[in-house]
Amino acid sequence: METKIPYKIYLEENEIPQAWYNVRADMKNKPAPLLNPGTLEPMTLDELKGVFCEELCRQELDNDTAYFPIPEEIQNFYKMYRPAPLVRAYFLEKALGTPAKIYYKFEGNNTSGSHKLNSAIAQAYYAKKQGLKGVTTETGAGQWGTALSMACSYFGLDCQVFMVKCSYEQKPFRREVMRTYGANVTPSPSMKTEVGKKILAEYPDTTGSLGCAISEAVEAAVTQPGYRYVLGSVLNQVLLHQSIIGLEAKAALDKYGIKPDIIIGCAGGGSNLGGLIAPFMGEKLRGEADYRIIAVEPASCPSLTRGKYAYDFCDTGAICPLAKMYTLGSQFIPSANHAGGLRYHGMSSILSQLYDDGLMEARSVEQTAVFEAAQLFARVEGTLPAPESSHAIRAAIDEALKCKETGEEKTILFGLTGTGYFDLKAYEQFNDKTMIDVIPTDEQIAASLAKLPKADK
Amino acid sequence: METKIPYKIYLEENEIPQAWYNVRADMKNKPAPLLNPGTLEPMTLDELKGVFCEELCRQELDNDTAYFPIPEEIQNFYKMYRPAPLVRAYFLEKALGTPAKIYYKFEGNNTSGSHKLNSAIAQAYYAKKQGLKGVTTETGAGQWGTALSMACSYFGLDCQVFMVKCSYEQKPFRREVMRTYGANVTPSPSMKTEVGKKILAEYPDTTGSLGCAISEAVEAAVTQPGYRYVLGSVLNQVLLHQSIIGLEAKAALDKYGIKPDIIIGCAGGGSNLGGLIAPFMGEKLRGEADYRIIAVEPASCPSLTRGKYAYDFCDTGAICPLAKMYTLGSQFIPSANHAGGLRYHGMSSILSQLYDDGLMEARSVEQTAVFEAAQLFARVEGTLPAPESSHAIRAAIDEALKCKETGEEKTILFGLTGTGYFDLKAYEQFNDKTMIDVIPTDEQIAASLAKLPKADK
Repeated sequence: METKIPYKIYLEENEIPQAWYNVRADMKNKPAPLLNPGTLEPMTLDELKGVFCEELCRQELDNDTAYFPIPEEIQNFYKMYRPAPLVRAYFLEKALGTPAKIYYKFEGNNTSGSHKLNSAIAQAYYAKKQGLKGVTTETGAGQWGTALSMACSYFGLDCQVFMVKCSYEQKPFRREVMRTYGANVTPSPSMKTEVGKKILAEYPDTTGSLGCAISEAVEAAVTQPGYRYVLGSVLNQVLLHQSIIGLEAKAALDKYGIKPDIIIGCAGGGSNLGGLIAPFMGEKLRGEADYRIIAVEPASCPSLTRGKYAYDFCDTGAICPLAKMYTLGSQFIPSANHAGGLRYHGMSSILSQLYDDGLMEARSVEQTAVFEAAQLFARVEGTLPAPESSHAIRAAIDEALKCKETGEEKTILFGLTGTGYFDLKAYEQFNDKTMIDVIPTDEQIAASLAKLPKADK
Repeated sequence: METKIPYKIYLEENEIPQAWYNVRADMKNKPAPLLNPGTLEPMTLDELKGVFCEELCRQELDNDTAYFPIPEEIQNFYKMYRPAPLVRAYFLEKALGTPAKIYYKFEGNNTSGSHKLNSAIAQAYYAKKQGLKGVTTETGAGQWGTALSMACSYFGLDCQVFMVKCSYEQKPFRREVMRTYGANVTPSPSMKTEVGKKILAEYPDTTGSLGCAISEAVEAAVTQPGYRYVLGSVLNQVLLHQSIIGLEAKAALDKYGIKPDIIIGCAGGGSNLGGLIAPFMGEKLRGEADYRIIAVEPASCPSLTRGKYAYDFCDTGAICPLAKMYTLGSQFIPSANHAGGLRYHGMSSILSQLYDDGLMEARSVEQTAVFEAAQLFARVEGTLPAPESSHAIRAAIDEALKCKETGEEKTILFGLTGTGYFDLKAYEQFNDKTMIDVIPTDEQIAASLAKLPKADK
């Protein structure tokens, strides 16, 4: 007799995981190390700690430790907005008429509106512990910047945010949330940094990109005493912190004896997907279980599905270390569409390696199809999803519809990373039927890839 | 030995209350009935059902039935976003250095961003059950309109929303949420109704008011076949549905053996306050327990603290029935400040009677003090509160600070009705330090009250 699964599964407070899981410990092929762009040698702790907090550098470089205890102050902060619910999408299943069982891990029930807070509070904590004055960062859609503002406010740190210009203009209210939490927000590219000035001189009409905002934030960090740079995605440390998503989801599923067949997450830099799949991928790597894992990216910025696995700069300004990743080239600037935080040219080294090893799949979806899924989800499940998250919704719906054809009762888990309350300009375009799909041509991608640094060994 | 209280108390799904509580059943002095403005006789079921759904009219008129079972379809919808958490404000207590124990019932974790969904889904359900084509309504800050859009979308009903013009302009994104859920949104006053045309002719520059939008929505309902009007506050039926807030809060407190000393809610029309206090007031009326209950209203629209207890129109256009309430006069239009949904000239008849009987207190607070409380709350508790809810936060902080002076360990419960994600224009003013307090003069209130209808017996 099947236990009736509630609509929402909340862990008890004492069931919130007390350690992060480092999937690298179980990877046979470790992710390629960051390289110093000058020497093409792996970045050392000493080199990294000029840019990042020291403890975070240790986490970045550690491919062996499987579990990192979560410091008590971070655990306390987590209690402010965690556990996040695991939701059974009964309403969506009914609307689709599918025999599939759909679950989603909802990370949007906090003012940052996304999962980004999970890593922001960790990074702010280590910055504070190191005695820093403040941190700098970039933000695309604004979730990361908001999350970091909240985290810095909690620890009394100064917070300087470079916000991708097209998001800054489309999402003026995000700026006010960040200001309410005490942050300084600058549209990027800006005249505040040398790299910003250079990019503006070359592309005066650019609407910006995450890669470009990263360059500015890094420059701002290394040129101000007492500051370090923090990043909301891509890095190993971020995926480590975000493992809380998957650990909680798995604990909630385990409580009811549920094993997912398919796990789906949207993928920009990889922070959400990497966090959601971590403990499941761990089981897969250790041969304890098997799962289909699907990364979903925007057709406008398809790093996994159309990019190249190669060393590249993490930023447009080419001042960051080189990372080996599936990339469209650091000079790739996606069209000014609304995929928000997924507008990043590369993919986290961990996920790139797992994908290259055939341990996960990837697909790209077009924007209008994504918003159709978002609208359906909003209407039946009640939550207006973020455009980013809606990429995962699209794929989950598609898989559920396949089950409808085949009659298979598969269990699908996807990550609902956040809410779309600050993305109403995009919804307005969709409602007005003026939204279009802009997909890069092969020539555009080839031209961008031609500028890859010569670092592959 | 005190049990350690978790940060958030979630009821189990099967602990969500299955019946609404009607506080009128325990009131010795019943709220005064609605009057027909023509005859000055109490409105009958037959008269009311031309405007409202029939089942809702029955609920409106029933002063005797203590519990109304919640229909199963509404219970199912509640599971989409309920139970709402009861949060122990440990972070706020620490920031204030108070010995008081502060709890808040958080109703903002749904896309409508507020408690309004609790009644919207009930009203949409009864409209659907009656076989209607659609409903009309007004919305101030936009929470009610959003909630109703979501509820109508769920039941496949047409939804026509008249939105107070100043909110329509300050909150364009609210409109897109409503459109995403399929609603039609019109800024009020509009040229779509006779009453709208009349108001615009008299006050061409008006920024609108809830009372005026109500008039338009009622006219639209009675002039279209298959439509009825629904209202998000003030009415007895709404307070009945909103009792779910208090019932859940009380069940969560009871689980841990906690008895609040002071219960605080913001009050515009009274839907949140009436719902939050319902079961506690019931105990008080039956002599089973005592509580201090405090209604908090904006100084810009102080119906309880500076209004008159008298029969008045619920709407500016004077086409609705007369309700006996604390009122500033239906012609009172508050300054175009940002108190949002609290910009209503009167107070629910139930709460007005309870206040007149000395069973609860009231106080008014100024806008800048409210936003100071909102900012502190956001920074320490992590949730950006709605301006309306922040009135309750202000009063809760003030009470907690009194405890700090006296050393009393009082237990304070307040209602956090919603989030401020669509109120960033107001936060921007606060961040820019351009926010001002505009309080009506005695002469302004007297002039408005001079126009009260002659209906008091």
